[in-house]
Amino acid sequence: MNTMNVTNMFGKNIRRLRKLRGLSQEALADKAGLHRTYIGSVERGERNITLVNAERIANALDVHITDCLKEEK
Amino acid sequence: MNTMNVTNMFGKNIRRLRKLRGLSQEALADKAGLHRTYIGSVERGERNITLVNAERIANALDVHITDCLKEEK
Repeated sequence: MNTMNVTNMFGKNIRRLRKLRGLSQEALADKAGLHRTYIGSVERGERNITLVNAERIANALDVHITDCLKEEK
Repeated sequence: MNTMNVTNMFGKNIRRLRKLRGLSQEALADKAGLHRTYIGSVERGERNITLVNAERIANALDVHITDCLKEEK
């Protein structure tokens, strides 16, 4: 259905939203209760993360999980 | 952010969409390339599934993954 792989799309969106909020990977990781290197690999689309971790990251960015899974216009 | 757990919300949505399409769990499983018992446990919110499998199920239901992650009105 999507041309872009879902893990890549999620990673691109959270990187974009994190930068928009002026957060470092470390600051986002702290807010989400995850490790900085984990956030880095998620942003690069390298991890097939679970819905629960995806929601934790979305919550830390103050967005709904669906906002991290939309193709940017 | 959500009152309902993300895995429960996903499960409820895919059960609703599957029934709307008149598909059995087995038929959906076949379309998605997954096992029927796996679909059953996902529908019951028992599995913290990955983005890739969530998208496979959404594709088999002809919806976008975000349609499976919205709280039903």
